[in-house]
Amino acid sequence: MEQRVSVISLGVADLDRARAFYQAMGWTEGSGSTDDIAFFQAGGLVLGLWDRTKLAEDSAVTNSEGWGGVTLAYNTRSRDEVDEVMEQARAAGAAVGRSPAETFWGGYSGVFIDTEGNPWEVAHNPYWVIDDDGNTLLGV
Amino acid sequence: MEQRVSVISLGVADLDRARAFYQAMGWTEGSGSTDDIAFFQAGGLVLGLWDRTKLAEDSAVTNSEGWGGVTLAYNTRSRDEVDEVMEQARAAGAAVGRSPAETFWGGYSGVFIDTEGNPWEVAHNPYWVIDDDGNTLLGV
Repeated sequence: MEQRVSVISLGVADLDRARAFYQAMGWTEGSGSTDDIAFFQAGGLVLGLWDRTKLAEDSAVTNSEGWGGVTLAYNTRSRDEVDEVMEQARAAGAAVGRSPAETFWGGYSGVFIDTEGNPWEVAHNPYWVIDDDGNTLLGV
Repeated sequence: MEQRVSVISLGVADLDRARAFYQAMGWTEGSGSTDDIAFFQAGGLVLGLWDRTKLAEDSAVTNSEGWGGVTLAYNTRSRDEVDEVMEQARAAGAAVGRSPAETFWGGYSGVFIDTEGNPWEVAHNPYWVIDDDGNTLLGV
């Protein structure tokens, strides 16, 4: 197994609402999207939105309510960009879980919760590099 | 907001057990890993393992038991590689959620559940491209 992730599938309660949220965040759907599923080319991986009940069945798991242990993060190139993205998310219908502030690990971040309940940390981490292609790279 | 994901954080019940699982899958930890957190450079993003209770608190969510709507996938370059990765995962301590078989969408996939309960689909999708850098690209 190579050390990489190909797809992040988010199971959603309301696909139209979820599509509208990510579109409002500036994302554009890619090839293969249908009435039942939305695919976004997100850097080197695919982010998919699909009915949560169907995704649970397809994933061979029981569909619990609430958060199940996975948090995504979007890392920015500046502190100001954290504030900007958090405001964009709020305007698009996300809940603000944690307002932007300095963190215990020396960065600056906030958390928004998307319309389907998925938390996204929006973070500026001065120890990591975001290259011109948008890859997030651990320090050396 | 650019159309990309920087970090996938998996909240784990037993960090030593989770580390051992991903190491057994052939993954090597990167810079910044400590006794409390494991970071893996996974293509253009970072996959992190952290205590699930702490991650829930940091993510401003309630820590539910079970699956919370997110499934990861690892896409292979061949059908045979699906079988190989599923067998590697089983040997490393994962549960087999769904044995490899042809799928309704024209591919071939199985699902393993890692030691912390996270489902991974292992899939060969003939309509998508995996480039030499390991990026998974939607068709055009």
